[in-house]
Amino acid sequence: MSYTDLSYTDFQAEIAKVNDILCVVNLLAWDARTMMPPGGVDSRGQQVATLTSLARELATGDAMRRAIDAASSALASAPADDIRRRALVQAAGEIDILRRIPAALIAESAELKTRAHVAWAEARQANDFAGYVPVLDRMLAIQREISGAIGYAEHPYDALIGIYEPGMTRSQLQTLFGTLKAALVPLIEKARSVPQPRTDFLTRNYPVDRQKAFGLAMAERMGYDLQRGRLDDTVHPFEISFTRNDVRITSRFRETWLPAGFFALWHEAGHGMYEQGVAPEFTRSIFATDIVNLYAVGGASFGIHESQSRLWENRVGRSRKFWELHFPELKSYFPEQLADVSALEFWRSVNQVRPDFIRVEADELTYDLHIILRAEIEAALMAGEVKVKDLPALWAEKMQTYLGLTVPNDTLGVLQDVHWSHGYVGSFPTYTLGNIMSSQFFATARKVPHIAAGLESGNYQPLKTWLNDNIHSYGRSSKPSETLQRVTGSPLRTEPYIQDLTDKVASLIA
Amino acid sequence: MSYTDLSYTDFQAEIAKVNDILCVVNLLAWDARTMMPPGGVDSRGQQVATLTSLARELATGDAMRRAIDAASSALASAPADDIRRRALVQAAGEIDILRRIPAALIAESAELKTRAHVAWAEARQANDFAGYVPVLDRMLAIQREISGAIGYAEHPYDALIGIYEPGMTRSQLQTLFGTLKAALVPLIEKARSVPQPRTDFLTRNYPVDRQKAFGLAMAERMGYDLQRGRLDDTVHPFEISFTRNDVRITSRFRETWLPAGFFALWHEAGHGMYEQGVAPEFTRSIFATDIVNLYAVGGASFGIHESQSRLWENRVGRSRKFWELHFPELKSYFPEQLADVSALEFWRSVNQVRPDFIRVEADELTYDLHIILRAEIEAALMAGEVKVKDLPALWAEKMQTYLGLTVPNDTLGVLQDVHWSHGYVGSFPTYTLGNIMSSQFFATARKVPHIAAGLESGNYQPLKTWLNDNIHSYGRSSKPSETLQRVTGSPLRTEPYIQDLTDKVASLIA
Repeated sequence: MSYTDLSYTDFQAEIAKVNDILCVVNLLAWDARTMMPPGGVDSRGQQVATLTSLARELATGDAMRRAIDAASSALASAPADDIRRRALVQAAGEIDILRRIPAALIAESAELKTRAHVAWAEARQANDFAGYVPVLDRMLAIQREISGAIGYAEHPYDALIGIYEPGMTRSQLQTLFGTLKAALVPLIEKARSVPQPRTDFLTRNYPVDRQKAFGLAMAERMGYDLQRGRLDDTVHPFEISFTRNDVRITSRFRETWLPAGFFALWHEAGHGMYEQGVAPEFTRSIFATDIVNLYAVGGASFGIHESQSRLWENRVGRSRKFWELHFPELKSYFPEQLADVSALEFWRSVNQVRPDFIRVEADELTYDLHIILRAEIEAALMAGEVKVKDLPALWAEKMQTYLGLTVPNDTLGVLQDVHWSHGYVGSFPTYTLGNIMSSQFFATARKVPHIAAGLESGNYQPLKTWLNDNIHSYGRSSKPSETLQRVTGSPLRTEPYIQDLTDKVASLIA
Repeated sequence: MSYTDLSYTDFQAEIAKVNDILCVVNLLAWDARTMMPPGGVDSRGQQVATLTSLARELATGDAMRRAIDAASSALASAPADDIRRRALVQAAGEIDILRRIPAALIAESAELKTRAHVAWAEARQANDFAGYVPVLDRMLAIQREISGAIGYAEHPYDALIGIYEPGMTRSQLQTLFGTLKAALVPLIEKARSVPQPRTDFLTRNYPVDRQKAFGLAMAERMGYDLQRGRLDDTVHPFEISFTRNDVRITSRFRETWLPAGFFALWHEAGHGMYEQGVAPEFTRSIFATDIVNLYAVGGASFGIHESQSRLWENRVGRSRKFWELHFPELKSYFPEQLADVSALEFWRSVNQVRPDFIRVEADELTYDLHIILRAEIEAALMAGEVKVKDLPALWAEKMQTYLGLTVPNDTLGVLQDVHWSHGYVGSFPTYTLGNIMSSQFFATARKVPHIAAGLESGNYQPLKTWLNDNIHSYGRSSKPSETLQRVTGSPLRTEPYIQDLTDKVASLIA
């Protein structure tokens, strides 16, 4: 073994330790949300804090710095496309950002998160925004300080977006969002201009175990591997991984609301397939470790991750062809409940367009307007252009403009999301970025003849393998913009997404 | 805050970090045995190794040493019974033992464990002891080296017993075991000299969910707190804790063997109540941390822990009064299956004495003879008085002497237990120590009038509270010998145990 190899091995061993700890933090989070008895909550918080601190110390400590320096020197003469060199540059860059955020700020944010969550839940329950203002005000001030500590070229929001979507800026978002708004508003009007589809059958009684069996059978058909995964129930569905070899998903099934459970399942399975598809040689490496967020994940960014979940949930799972192919199977699980329903009726029912107040219940066409509203408010907050106390009025104004709805109270308005209480500012836009990317990737994939043939026949293996080969296997070694360029031949474009939605509306109203 | 308080707080913070990590290692183990998909096994092993190494580094590192030294100096003038002084002495003592075991030896043992487990499972399957000899030979050699590294006054086995039962020695065990053997062999003969009880109804069909409901209802009645616990299914039942606030148990229910599931459940619930009962102020302290074994646990020793599980399983759960009181409730879960069975018949059936080859299936009277056999062999192995290849013959000889059985093959003999493959030498005796202690504690508890009244009426709250107050709450702050002396007024004594077994046999054959 050469000196280069040896020093690179040292670097890998340091990163592997950090990754191990962060995978375990993920398991602590999974367990807390699925299995933990109620009494465990305080101890669990301390365990997460201790392990996260250890990961931070190891990532920003002297041993890591020495390992990176030694391996970088040894690799100085290696070719520029050497994957090891990329690993070192990426690790050094992310560690640099992490170092810039003062530990005291992180500690305050973590401490405040617990109180803010309680304050938010109480305010939401009592429709009392005023009572929530002081704690939200402080949480947002901390996020502004973090933005300042990280640094930015143009806008304080940029530093925070970059935590979740490296390379994305407020200015790019403004352009994207402008195009989207212009396209979505008339599309929604068009969809609403015709008689609305039947949805009466969606609220019949559907035993949860059968919903789960159908949902899981389809997820496996899509390519989610249960040998390296499992499904559990939670109020808020999520996906989380502890290396590519153990990638768990959750969903929420409701006995009298059929679509909720399996669409959420396929969404999370989409995330799960991404993590399961990261190249095995990237296990425990920097390419499966998000140092800035101190989070073990193989996805290139939050947006790219969301593109995979949305692709399976919406581009595949809400397509007309999908239900033409699989509605008979669903019907075999629920022969009585769906006796009077056709595949076409079912497809229409799960694509109904209906502007409403709550983001997480929004349909595919109105969803992005909820996101745009939040992103615009976040940017204004970070720039100090709006005060926390004025948020309800601003929220109401934007809901009226974008969705034509009059917000009746703050519980159905500015108090609906937990994100800000937890200090997440800048992550909302990645949901819409994911939607846009899902269509851009899907448009490229569909051009491959055997993928298109598979979609026509219900064989999703070609699509899944293509996503594995072109996106998943790269893990975090490929930046979002590089990924888009490499896979689709162009930077981020809204056209494929708008085209997909236009086609869907045309088909729905036909 | 004084300097003394400050420096002690530093020490506590260092220990709390180690405890947090070890609690998390316990969660990793629990998850691996209950929830983890099969693909996760290798990654999980790496995560456990990384966290265990970190715990070891923190425990034996400079920051810990400085914290102990500073706090010890500051406390030099404190009274000798100061609990903080005891904490410092205990931490320093355990860290000293941990330091003596060379890291290379621990690493080799951990690495060998994986291979040894496979070799053992294959050998057991194929009844091929010869094929298992080389790996077992090396594993036992490592344990001898560890014994040498720890050091001992009289016998190499002492150093290993002391890991699990501080203060216990081979010489004390010889005396205890001599007394036990002399009492057990004739008791077993006596129990076997009369017609054996009915057991036909135990193998009827008992749906597992009802077994579980009954078992759990009784465990809650005993005092196991499901707000800070949960029950899952595993092949090998166990209890494990992540602080007193999250103490989980598992059991194994079989549809056609009624007693297996709930007796194991109550056994584990007995362990669980111990952990749930450790004083809240000892959470994350040295008194909830076994530094030598790098194991988060609140119990004073393996033996004291086992005394609690055996007390609930056998002293309470297998008592005649228990089934007089609760058989009607069991019958309400299984009215058809138990229609022709009386409480007395049921009690007799779950106390049947029957010498057999397998330890984990042994009844209360023969169980200790299985342990004595193993402890004697372990001591001889550590002293180098017997060769690994000669174990089958030695095993057969002892089985003949103690239980009057001719071992038909090694799978039913020396290959039945996994312990040695995992490097556990010296832990078997703690099972019998637990049995002995369970009676010693129970004899004392029964003298308290309201405890005795509770046992007569099925109110176990007084017994559980007494165990909380006298044993559990102390955590690891009270050594096993101190605990026995304080609670029962005497050192370890076999008389109460032998008396309990004698009374039981008398009642069984009456």
